[in-house]
Amino acid sequence: MFVTFEGIDGSGKSTQAALLAAVLRAEGREVVETREPGGTPLGERIRGLLLGDGEIVPFAEAALFAAARAQLVADVIRPALDRGADVVCDRFIDSSLAYQGLARGLGLDAVLELNAPALGSLLPDRTFLLLVPPAESAGRATGRPDRIEREGLAFLERVDRAYRELAAALPARITMLDGGLAPTQLARAIRDELRALA
Amino acid sequence: MFVTFEGIDGSGKSTQAALLAAVLRAEGREVVETREPGGTPLGERIRGLLLGDGEIVPFAEAALFAAARAQLVADVIRPALDRGADVVCDRFIDSSLAYQGLARGLGLDAVLELNAPALGSLLPDRTFLLLVPPAESAGRATGRPDRIEREGLAFLERVDRAYRELAAALPARITMLDGGLAPTQLARAIRDELRALA
Repeated sequence: MFVTFEGIDGSGKSTQAALLAAVLRAEGREVVETREPGGTPLGERIRGLLLGDGEIVPFAEAALFAAARAQLVADVIRPALDRGADVVCDRFIDSSLAYQGLARGLGLDAVLELNAPALGSLLPDRTFLLLVPPAESAGRATGRPDRIEREGLAFLERVDRAYRELAAALPARITMLDGGLAPTQLARAIRDELRALA
Repeated sequence: MFVTFEGIDGSGKSTQAALLAAVLRAEGREVVETREPGGTPLGERIRGLLLGDGEIVPFAEAALFAAARAQLVADVIRPALDRGADVVCDRFIDSSLAYQGLARGLGLDAVLELNAPALGSLLPDRTFLLLVPPAESAGRATGRPDRIEREGLAFLERVDRAYRELAAALPARITMLDGGLAPTQLARAIRDELRALA
């Protein structure tokens, strides 16, 4: 079972990914937890580039995510799924579709095409999209609303809309959840939905 | 004028790129010298990843080159050409076509498609391919023919064939030159050919 979590920073997706992994392990399943960008030595170095200070044009950003994803799929996700383990990943292809494809305007088709060699036929069995109001997310956490942070909020709102569009277009794979619910309540809803899947 | 140099390591392309830039400058032209991967802060960090030790699957390698290229075109090459400067680049798209497209087997179409957003309509006005026998190139320079180096030679031979195929397919843009000629003789041939172009 390949499960991914999506949402803007501060949506609680990393917490829910960790909780789901813990629940599945408590049931005796082998679980591989990973994240994007990252999850491999190459991917973590690419993460450093992406989260660093330098200027990155939108296509270069998308290509860096695709490179990290190709390595993660080849080295971690496919081998885990092949031996019957569950994989829980904090961000995956939908982050590229929402952030680079829609919010940065590269287009969904361009981002899908760019990622096709990295994915092959692989898609998550289920993706949980945690929704929180962008203005209440990590983007506002520092309390210093300067120019960058205001740009940050407008961008987060575009990402939020992009995620909702994706979920509306792909209801069979993407489940929207209220990130404002209590973490344990969310974790229970997620486990129940996955049980119905399997 | 946008001129690129291609060839395997040890072919003398970096020397010829520097000589051409010097000759053009001596004629009073503005010349921007750059290289791939690299040429921007992002690109140089990607170069560090690509030349480092870690495992990189072929598509991730190609995507990293494409990311560095997108940044280089946007930040360095296009602005220089737009203001009328000449650009001399040590490796460009043909390296991706030869190394990842043909020698690593990703395919020319896949690599062209991957790089289309980075290039837009940009192609070199002229590309000089310097040919040297792979066995005499830098790959054999250390004199310690271990397993990696023997793999290295087989790979260099595939790259050499790939470059020749590209040059045969694109004779209007790619000029093959004997990298074994004296550097000053080569530099003169290159300047003469460019003069005929302009």
